[in-house]
Amino acid sequence: MPAADHGWSDGLLEAGLGDAEVAAAVGWPARVRRMVEVEAALGRALATAGVVPAEAGEAIARACDPDRVDLVALARQAARAPTPVIPLVAALVEQADPLAASWLHHGATSQDVVDTATVLQLRDALDLLDGRLAAVAEHAAVLARQHRDTVMAGRTLGQQAVPTTFGLLAARWVGALDRRRQQLAALRPRLLVVQLGGAAGTRAVWGERADAVVDALADELRLTVPELPWHAERDRIAELAGALSAVAAVVGTVATDLVLLAQNEIGEVAEGAAAGPGSSAMPHKRNPVHATGARAAARLAQGEAQVLLAAAANHELERAAGAWQAEWVALPSALVRTAGAVVRVSAALVDLDVDGSRMRDNLAANHGLTASEALSTVLVPAHGRRDAQALAGELAVRAVDEGRALVEVAAADARVHAAVSPEELAAALEPAAVTALAGPLVDRALAAHDRIRTSLDPA
Amino acid sequence: MPAADHGWSDGLLEAGLGDAEVAAAVGWPARVRRMVEVEAALGRALATAGVVPAEAGEAIARACDPDRVDLVALARQAARAPTPVIPLVAALVEQADPLAASWLHHGATSQDVVDTATVLQLRDALDLLDGRLAAVAEHAAVLARQHRDTVMAGRTLGQQAVPTTFGLLAARWVGALDRRRQQLAALRPRLLVVQLGGAAGTRAVWGERADAVVDALADELRLTVPELPWHAERDRIAELAGALSAVAAVVGTVATDLVLLAQNEIGEVAEGAAAGPGSSAMPHKRNPVHATGARAAARLAQGEAQVLLAAAANHELERAAGAWQAEWVALPSALVRTAGAVVRVSAALVDLDVDGSRMRDNLAANHGLTASEALSTVLVPAHGRRDAQALAGELAVRAVDEGRALVEVAAADARVHAAVSPEELAAALEPAAVTALAGPLVDRALAAHDRIRTSLDPA
Amino acid sequence: MPAADHGWSDGLLEAGLGDAEVAAAVGWPARVRRMVEVEAALGRALATAGVVPAEAGEAIARACDPDRVDLVALARQAARAPTPVIPLVAALVEQADPLAASWLHHGATSQDVVDTATVLQLRDALDLLDGRLAAVAEHAAVLARQHRDTVMAGRTLGQQAVPTTFGLLAARWVGALDRRRQQLAALRPRLLVVQLGGAAGTRAVWGERADAVVDALADELRLTVPELPWHAERDRIAELAGALSAVAAVVGTVATDLVLLAQNEIGEVAEGAAAGPGSSAMPHKRNPVHATGARAAARLAQGEAQVLLAAAANHELERAAGAWQAEWVALPSALVRTAGAVVRVSAALVDLDVDGSRMRDNLAANHGLTASEALSTVLVPAHGRRDAQALAGELAVRAVDEGRALVEVAAADARVHAAVSPEELAAALEPAAVTALAGPLVDRALAAHDRIRTSLDPA
Amino acid sequence: MPAADHGWSDGLLEAGLGDAEVAAAVGWPARVRRMVEVEAALGRALATAGVVPAEAGEAIARACDPDRVDLVALARQAARAPTPVIPLVAALVEQADPLAASWLHHGATSQDVVDTATVLQLRDALDLLDGRLAAVAEHAAVLARQHRDTVMAGRTLGQQAVPTTFGLLAARWVGALDRRRQQLAALRPRLLVVQLGGAAGTRAVWGERADAVVDALADELRLTVPELPWHAERDRIAELAGALSAVAAVVGTVATDLVLLAQNEIGEVAEGAAAGPGSSAMPHKRNPVHATGARAAARLAQGEAQVLLAAAANHELERAAGAWQAEWVALPSALVRTAGAVVRVSAALVDLDVDGSRMRDNLAANHGLTASEALSTVLVPAHGRRDAQALAGELAVRAVDEGRALVEVAAADARVHAAVSPEELAAALEPAAVTALAGPLVDRALAAHDRIRTSLDPA
Repeated sequence: MPAADHGWSDGLLEAGLGDAEVAAAVGWPARVRRMVEVEAALGRALATAGVVPAEAGEAIARACDPDRVDLVALARQAARAPTPVIPLVAALVEQADPLAASWLHHGATSQDVVDTATVLQLRDALDLLDGRLAAVAEHAAVLARQHRDTVMAGRTLGQQAVPTTFGLLAARWVGALDRRRQQLAALRPRLLVVQLGGAAGTRAVWGERADAVVDALADELRLTVPELPWHAERDRIAELAGALSAVAAVVGTVATDLVLLAQNEIGEVAEGAAAGPGSSAMPHKRNPVHATGARAAARLAQGEAQVLLAAAANHELERAAGAWQAEWVALPSALVRTAGAVVRVSAALVDLDVDGSRMRDNLAANHGLTASEALSTVLVPAHGRRDAQALAGELAVRAVDEGRALVEVAAADARVHAAVSPEELAAALEPAAVTALAGPLVDRALAAHDRIRTSLDPA
Repeated sequence: MPAADHGWSDGLLEAGLGDAEVAAAVGWPARVRRMVEVEAALGRALATAGVVPAEAGEAIARACDPDRVDLVALARQAARAPTPVIPLVAALVEQADPLAASWLHHGATSQDVVDTATVLQLRDALDLLDGRLAAVAEHAAVLARQHRDTVMAGRTLGQQAVPTTFGLLAARWVGALDRRRQQLAALRPRLLVVQLGGAAGTRAVWGERADAVVDALADELRLTVPELPWHAERDRIAELAGALSAVAAVVGTVATDLVLLAQNEIGEVAEGAAAGPGSSAMPHKRNPVHATGARAAARLAQGEAQVLLAAAANHELERAAGAWQAEWVALPSALVRTAGAVVRVSAALVDLDVDGSRMRDNLAANHGLTASEALSTVLVPAHGRRDAQALAGELAVRAVDEGRALVEVAAADARVHAAVSPEELAAALEPAAVTALAGPLVDRALAAHDRIRTSLDPA
Repeated sequence: MPAADHGWSDGLLEAGLGDAEVAAAVGWPARVRRMVEVEAALGRALATAGVVPAEAGEAIARACDPDRVDLVALARQAARAPTPVIPLVAALVEQADPLAASWLHHGATSQDVVDTATVLQLRDALDLLDGRLAAVAEHAAVLARQHRDTVMAGRTLGQQAVPTTFGLLAARWVGALDRRRQQLAALRPRLLVVQLGGAAGTRAVWGERADAVVDALADELRLTVPELPWHAERDRIAELAGALSAVAAVVGTVATDLVLLAQNEIGEVAEGAAAGPGSSAMPHKRNPVHATGARAAARLAQGEAQVLLAAAANHELERAAGAWQAEWVALPSALVRTAGAVVRVSAALVDLDVDGSRMRDNLAANHGLTASEALSTVLVPAHGRRDAQALAGELAVRAVDEGRALVEVAAADARVHAAVSPEELAAALEPAAVTALAGPLVDRALAAHDRIRTSLDPA
Repeated sequence: MPAADHGWSDGLLEAGLGDAEVAAAVGWPARVRRMVEVEAALGRALATAGVVPAEAGEAIARACDPDRVDLVALARQAARAPTPVIPLVAALVEQADPLAASWLHHGATSQDVVDTATVLQLRDALDLLDGRLAAVAEHAAVLARQHRDTVMAGRTLGQQAVPTTFGLLAARWVGALDRRRQQLAALRPRLLVVQLGGAAGTRAVWGERADAVVDALADELRLTVPELPWHAERDRIAELAGALSAVAAVVGTVATDLVLLAQNEIGEVAEGAAAGPGSSAMPHKRNPVHATGARAAARLAQGEAQVLLAAAANHELERAAGAWQAEWVALPSALVRTAGAVVRVSAALVDLDVDGSRMRDNLAANHGLTASEALSTVLVPAHGRRDAQALAGELAVRAVDEGRALVEVAAADARVHAAVSPEELAAALEPAAVTALAGPLVDRALAAHDRIRTSLDPA
């Protein structure tokens, strides 16, 4: 393995901040294997289209044996060549019989092979990524269902605002994750297209059989035929990059919520004990390790995505001098990091301890002021909206000043009495009453989730 | 106008590197107008849903008169408030009759109003942007049609490779632009949704009539109802940001091609005379001014898009402390810059001088070596592929050494004679022959363009 | 004002997320004024160097009256020209006497004028930015001094770890702010250099008097003469962009700390009452408005800085087609946003309510487990380090299980008794004891702050 | 090696778009080695300071044998732990004698070890990077000296403007590279500081001997002692990131110039034959392979730098949950990519073929219009500046219309005759005359280069 030569790849960090299976799908060995596969498929396609003799197609396919490629030697040669395809084809030709040697790579350009191999890798990586997203959406859906009616404080700008439910929060995560699955699904047909155009994208060498060659190659590889070669039109890659960055954004925001809710003073969630060892000096700490990893990986993923987006703006004429080559690193990294972020947040959610009683306590703390909106609402019929708000505000200030709960202060106020009975008041200020609509919202969101899951996951 | 206060807005630069109409749609005055519109529509929706008396709905609508809002004063107040909605509602209430004052903004949170107003602005801006993209795609399509058979050198890494046609290059631009129109069209249904959830997204205040309120508001504003409020789920914005960045990438790469082809030594295209005055010191210069502006604006657009993508990863719980507020600037800017880039590249293309004879001359220069692939191809039947390539390579080297054209050197070589007749040779090396397939590719691409245009542009 | 034309500039947002004074220094009107100043200074310099008659220098200076430039008309013309200097010089020449008209702008290129004017604006903006940074560092230093011994929980990954002091946290802010002031001070000599080279940077037109012209211009404008013109070497701008991004990073992290500490459940700091109105629906909320604004502005600033860094990598040969023009927008924006972030965090700090008793309560909560490291340390002499840690861990678990404070559980344990007296134990676990070294660290940091302040602020 | 497990690291791409030596300095194996070294040094420092027995210091140092650490196992464990230090210390303790086991890592926190190890890696990497920058600056200086008087066209926005020299272009590269070396040298003292603070940065465990411990550790590792621990103040890292991005910008712009000048139609430079094999299909192509690699690596480097800058804005309180962990990947990558970019542009420059006669031909082409400024200048004394410019412009237009060289057209014009003699005219329009000042500028720049080199390179 080339990596072993220079000891650069951070196994530790990759494992923790990346996805090993995706890495296997998009890494260098897989890249070589896929390029060899493309050369083999091209050989067969040339035969199918009648550009080369039928035996040549078979001979090429036989010559294209990835196990006979020396990955280390190829890596060394490739570092000095414009593309890795040049030494790869030389190596394949060397071990091919004359017929295969004569027709291998016929009419193609290096970028045809690299890009089509990349598309094959992308298909694998997107399959894996979608599976991971489906899993994390499912974990979130389970939480939403379980905690459909678990009240907690809604917090805006870090401040308790009004009650909400943990189920609603989790349902919002589900929705965002599902939407990103849909985005990724929608771009696949545009993205998973064969690249085959020859040196300048004109398909010149194959003459009138060019369309047949392209069609046959796409058939071989189960890819779609695009309208045109796309050597320098990287908008498909840019679309993917944007989508990956959006996935990372969703993961990042879920992980951020987890880190915040896990703070000691809030203590409403904790990653499960399986999260691994804590600090030796501080055995009491229960760190949100997976959420932390997810946030880190999401940052890295967004960085790679931005490299891809910026590069896509700078492809020159028929092939870019720099922008394309940057893709070779940034595209696999973006996938590995995005999937890594998803995996980490999945690990956090699957095993999440949710402390409903702490949620209720936190709501009640701070003088129960999160009930002030509900108080105001219940006073409206009797006092009108503006006076109701003013009265609720006054009582809230009094609660703070006197160090009592808002509900008590309100219950003792004559103007409140005049408006509602003590029972009505108590009922109306109950968090469960205030969040009565959250449950149906969760139900609706979960029903939508089921529909989306069904539409995306073939039976 | 607040801007006038501090003299910061670079009118010059905005005009040159932005789109004035889009700016009008997404700027501060339009923002205020849209927020007022949302408050009015909410008033009517509350009445429709039976939450407030019917007269209250009318009274609120009357009170919500954007022309009575003092934009400067509001801007000043808003700079010190958590959101501009707080002083706006205060201002509207002040000029409202008691009934309207009592129910205006009832049950909503500031972010409901800002976000829904933003969505309305986005709808306008996306309409404008799509129109501009359609126009530039059309300009490119005209070029593709006109220059379907205009041969030119295909260039990879800045080096002449093999012949292509200008029509094919322009058709590639068309394809990329159309794909981005499709991407923008596809995200609209996900993006153009109403935001209405109250302080924590639970819609608590409206009780069992909440769904009716939301539906009525969406009806009023011709928006869709999302499954859930989305105060902290900004993946929709992230998706838009990615799409805008991809649009900017396409524009950037088209503009880069134009700058490169306009270089003196290449001289194959030039921006039309309408491009404005050149350098006073160098009257001979014909600068690619619009392509330059497009590249600059595309850089700025991608910068704003990245701010949005990164911010989307950091929304906390029920409302973000910073990430949301950054959107207020970055989202309008991203739209203004993206559209600005499109407008500039459009100006470059609509009036582009294409010099077909210079293209042909450039192909012939450099010893006509771009024909070496074609030479090799024509030698294959007689010599086999490897020998054919070797022979073509040898002749290319000889052409350079002897300072002659490859076609002449080849015509004088006995091994070539043995393979093809002089007439066949000459015909095969003609750029028009080599690019024979480019025309049909252009035709196919333009047919696809027509289909896409029809699908996107309502009759 | 051009801005008024299209109503795009978000006065509100600029004011809240930008710095109005910096905006005035770097905006379009100031840009025009500075360009006119450069033309005037160049006229005088040409006279001083003997390139033009002495009277011509005076005549040029008279012709260069910024108040006679029509900013709106110029903006319109500039949007269609390669640079704003071309229509500006035309306008100045139009109102000049023949002698001035003949020599104005003699030998210069547009970029000389734009870049030198930009440097003059940068000098102003950096002066303002440094003043704001000095102020916020001072506010932080006051907090560090006041709260030198205010104990609070140190938090890692959102979890309480061991005690620290608020003074130490504030002192860390001081250090980071001071280091960035030093970085900005260090780059000024490299950055504040005149640009004067003529069309390709060769200073050809002025012949052997070129050095004298450049020296005189630098003298006029109190700038330094660089070794070479730097039309396409934007590494100075890149260095500034990196520094601004680092400033924004410091501000962002301080503001993040404030948002976190202001959360209800932590409640250790709050922005002063001057922070403005809260939510009407939730009168009890005290939002960290300024910290939120600072985080938003810091995001925007870092986005602009990245545009500058990326653009700096793409300047072509003697002048860039796009990368330079993007600077026109991104550079002023980066300064306005960075300064805006500083101003907002300054507003948060100057008026910060620090609740030392809440800090102490939070430390004591969570079973006082933050004392576990101190407990372990005090047990080391008697039990050895590993056993001491194990024992402390065991007692911590017991404290949680039994719902008691760690200090109580420890005091009741025989193995602890065997190691330390009750008095020693109590003393050792006191937060003030544990943080005994924090005070001297604060003192050292504040002494360093005084030295840096003295070195940076001229008497 | 962990990397071998999942085959992710792209040996090929790393080698081509990264720097193998820097990778060895900052990769995972070196990271582990450095962390072990820090633990050993801490042990000795604790003994020196009298915190632990002298024998304990020695025992710890013996236990800290990096060769006994199982990198693969550690990587696996680390992926599930908050930091790699936790399993590392466990592994070291396991193989330590009781005394060492008892005191190893005493009073430190994981981040102390990771960060100090990182600083040691940074020192190595910065040494290597500086050496590479010095080399490339030297290659550029050689070119500047050799081509001090090699005239070429100065090009702005891709258009020929006026003559310049290749020496001046190369000298500009030298200046930019040297300035970045200076920037990196200037930040080293701020950056290369020890991190040692314990769990919350208070250095609590070591009591009054804390300063002695820190001083001794810094001595052991030849690092500086900072005013305060800096666990969450990553402005130093941000400053480095900005500097690396600026280095990448310089490399990117040099490489861009090379790609442009190497275009067939310009053909003024070519990468040396050592640049490796060309396209098999197009043996005539001489691709700017190294410049292309440099541009790609520079893009990647700037992407990583931006991740670091953004992360630095989001470190929370005493330790970040995500932003710090992202550094683990982005910081080594930023260094590997930046150095990789430098190495590739160095390979391009060291072996660059510069074609002075092609430069002269290109200047003469395009009707010799680059002489129009010189023509205008020589006409000024007789005609005044405005008339001189007008006349030069008129003659330029005539040259284009008549397909003749400007110098001929001018020589045949009576008004020119009236102003200068034919000999004067010919002499004045010679590119060598027009660029007469470029040589002295190069000399000045090279003298500055010598001074900077002497100041940065110890004898």
